[in-house]
Amino acid sequence: MFESAELGHKIDKEIYKKAVPELRAWLLDAQYELKEQGKIPVIVLVSGQDGAGKGETINVLYEWMDPRFISTLAFSAPTDEERQRPVMWRYWRALPPKGRIGVFAGSWYSGPIHDRIDGNMTKAGLDARVDQINRFEQMLVNEGALILKFWFHLTKDGQKRRLKALEKDPRTAWRVTKWNWDRLKTYDKLQDVVGHVLRMTNTPWAPWIIIEGEDDRYRSLTTGKILLDAIRQRLAGTSKQTTPVAPPVPVNLDGRDVLSELDLACTIAKKDYENQLAKWQGRLSELVRDPRFKQKSLICVFEGADAAGKGGAVRRITAALDARDYQIVPIAAPTEEERAQPYMWRFWRHIPRNGRVTIFDRSWYGRVLVERVEGFCAEADWLRAYSEINDFEHELADAGAIVVKFWLQIGKDEQLKRFKEREKIEFKRFKITDEDWRNREKWDAYHSAICDMVDRTSTGNAPWTLVEANDKNYARVKILRTVCERLEAAFKSKDKTPD
Amino acid sequence: MFESAELGHKIDKEIYKKAVPELRAWLLDAQYELKEQGKIPVIVLVSGQDGAGKGETINVLYEWMDPRFISTLAFSAPTDEERQRPVMWRYWRALPPKGRIGVFAGSWYSGPIHDRIDGNMTKAGLDARVDQINRFEQMLVNEGALILKFWFHLTKDGQKRRLKALEKDPRTAWRVTKWNWDRLKTYDKLQDVVGHVLRMTNTPWAPWIIIEGEDDRYRSLTTGKILLDAIRQRLAGTSKQTTPVAPPVPVNLDGRDVLSELDLACTIAKKDYENQLAKWQGRLSELVRDPRFKQKSLICVFEGADAAGKGGAVRRITAALDARDYQIVPIAAPTEEERAQPYMWRFWRHIPRNGRVTIFDRSWYGRVLVERVEGFCAEADWLRAYSEINDFEHELADAGAIVVKFWLQIGKDEQLKRFKEREKIEFKRFKITDEDWRNREKWDAYHSAICDMVDRTSTGNAPWTLVEANDKNYARVKILRTVCERLEAAFKSKDKTPD
Repeated sequence: MFESAELGHKIDKEIYKKAVPELRAWLLDAQYELKEQGKIPVIVLVSGQDGAGKGETINVLYEWMDPRFISTLAFSAPTDEERQRPVMWRYWRALPPKGRIGVFAGSWYSGPIHDRIDGNMTKAGLDARVDQINRFEQMLVNEGALILKFWFHLTKDGQKRRLKALEKDPRTAWRVTKWNWDRLKTYDKLQDVVGHVLRMTNTPWAPWIIIEGEDDRYRSLTTGKILLDAIRQRLAGTSKQTTPVAPPVPVNLDGRDVLSELDLACTIAKKDYENQLAKWQGRLSELVRDPRFKQKSLICVFEGADAAGKGGAVRRITAALDARDYQIVPIAAPTEEERAQPYMWRFWRHIPRNGRVTIFDRSWYGRVLVERVEGFCAEADWLRAYSEINDFEHELADAGAIVVKFWLQIGKDEQLKRFKEREKIEFKRFKITDEDWRNREKWDAYHSAICDMVDRTSTGNAPWTLVEANDKNYARVKILRTVCERLEAAFKSKDKTPD
Repeated sequence: MFESAELGHKIDKEIYKKAVPELRAWLLDAQYELKEQGKIPVIVLVSGQDGAGKGETINVLYEWMDPRFISTLAFSAPTDEERQRPVMWRYWRALPPKGRIGVFAGSWYSGPIHDRIDGNMTKAGLDARVDQINRFEQMLVNEGALILKFWFHLTKDGQKRRLKALEKDPRTAWRVTKWNWDRLKTYDKLQDVVGHVLRMTNTPWAPWIIIEGEDDRYRSLTTGKILLDAIRQRLAGTSKQTTPVAPPVPVNLDGRDVLSELDLACTIAKKDYENQLAKWQGRLSELVRDPRFKQKSLICVFEGADAAGKGGAVRRITAALDARDYQIVPIAAPTEEERAQPYMWRFWRHIPRNGRVTIFDRSWYGRVLVERVEGFCAEADWLRAYSEINDFEHELADAGAIVVKFWLQIGKDEQLKRFKEREKIEFKRFKITDEDWRNREKWDAYHSAICDMVDRTSTGNAPWTLVEANDKNYARVKILRTVCERLEAAFKSKDKTPD
């Protein structure tokens, strides 16, 4: 979920200075219209890692808007009064009335996340709280609220850098305590828990907005723009919102995203390729014969641009496997039988039993890629698909499946070259159709859809691996290595279903 | 939740014989139209207690409809194949295609319920499964399915009678095993767990239908009619259903319901009343001074027909309390401040801290009573209110609050008598308004709304007490006694939040 927020986003000082006055004017306008109309309470959760700029962002919002109609609610340990009532009571008391903006510094998420990290809450207990939160937020949205949940993210190094910078500056040094540095030690644990909680509460009615926290200008500008867009969109809406509140929001104001950051020039020398291929295929073939694999299964998902080399990569995997142990499932248009069932049915039927491998050549991600881009399904349907997919993969992982997902990316030029080659070579001509040429025209729409897909469905249990595939050999080695590493990690991890 | 299914519902043989042929013809029609249209899969869960007629009902449905387009899926212990895959895989495999009816004998509910009863699952673990089930069913409904979840209920005595009857009949004796009799011993435990699971999964998109199981004719006819109505309603709908699928379904084919069963002739002699009043007021005053009450709070809710005697009953409670320890919250039209907040906000703000008492004279139930009947809010809003209210009361109970809810019922004649008296007595005239006369005209609409309210919101944590209030003194004693008994029970129960 944090992929897009680990790219080192930055906004130039000049660009920032030019953008802010306009944004401020618009935000003020939106705020007054909100107040005038008096129908929508806006609930803004400002959360994230220590040092990721939560306080700074709140200050900027106050500076940019009219502070008389914003209230900030900060929550730390509950008071006496609060401890003697249901946990949600303190938040109910703090809800902003219609027409106002309530900024929550620390929210109903803080308690469960920290209790879980400190070991004071079981995984199932956490899930129950998460469910309660989802119901609470759904009720608020049904009552007309606009909920914006910001999570400011830092990489581990980024967090170190931020804490050091804060400590160095005498104006902010007081904010960095031993406690913060101790927390840095539990970075991975926090990421684990947060990743889970954010995934489970990434609902269509109140999705998370994850923003990289390191660069002040990027963070402030992005937060401001998203807030503005969301308020405008709701003000323009004729009635209160019930179903999907929020199509994915772009967080790439600086033009950088997970795809643009790939170095497609990566290559591997032929000799090296042959050695590596042999090495990883050998390793894979050992791993699937390992007795520990009897309690696991392997599910590989291949998605990628047309002509990105999915088929070739799949064959390099299956070369290491016994034909009795694996199944390749190519996903094309659904059969009649499949059309008579829920969308996910045709994937469920191919789930391998323990000790087996299933390779999906294209997959359930069709819904948020081709179906979204081509308009084959309603917006509400592909929007709800993200969480349905996450649920599905979560269930697979819980049952012991290792889910490895690849996106194969090639450059637009490289694709053109491959298309033309395919047209020339007789036995490859079946591989290139008019549809491929048409898809190519939608390159940019696919680009956004892929970035959203990675942000919303790359989870701790089932992360995406983006593969630089201009060099087919490089791609194949990376894929084989990733599969092997995921298997090894799964064998090592003791708790299949931690509780 | 089981109130309406404990009234001893029965259908006459003659009435049944007359009703069945027509129902069969309609069901067949509906089934063919369903198949013809080929858009809606119908998923029928047949669940309930041992001996409550699950098997019989399935057989009747087969007899009444065309068995070629129904499939029955029975699930017991998972097979080898199933154990090696996610728990939901077996159910995915069994889903009926569009246009067909799939009857599930045993379903995704059976496993979690039994694991919890047998102590193989924590409460939090159960809640996580419940959440997963809710997401699964929501996905099915979003994909166009119609889900009907039947729960056949028996009282403890009813179950004993049914098992004996089955054992006596040589044709059915084989079905009753030692296991069934053993299960009877865990009746209360089962009811506890089932009550919780049903409440948590009583979603607007797939609500439970609870039917008394003892009388074969009543059970079959009710099930058949509800199935028919639901299919017809969906076929008539222009598009697939997203929001509320199901307004409450009437299960009183024999004209009996929780209100009609009240014996309004109950009275208490004057002398007896005085003794009892003194006794229970004394007891209450002891109980709220008990050190154990320091960890608890008491929330009393009074709802009832106009002139049913709410005010008088409240005064009999407060007479036993210290004015510093309680607060009476009369609920009338919301203030401006309250209107700017979510519906439940104005109740949250009055939640007592531990050691205190809050008495609500009318309450959050306004939404499913007056607002529903008068059309003050949209159907979707009062439909979602049932589960919001249950969530709310569940949170209160989790935090140690004892929630005691009273519905005061008087007869229509008695109400008329009291209205006229009020008009005559000068100091009571403010208590009778034109609105009271208008409400009286909607007696029947209120009657249905009250029955639905009791069925949907009487939970283990916060059950309704229906009070026969034609005799004010009788009502007051019953109310005081109930409050005392609930406090005593809460002090005795050790596990505040069982885990």
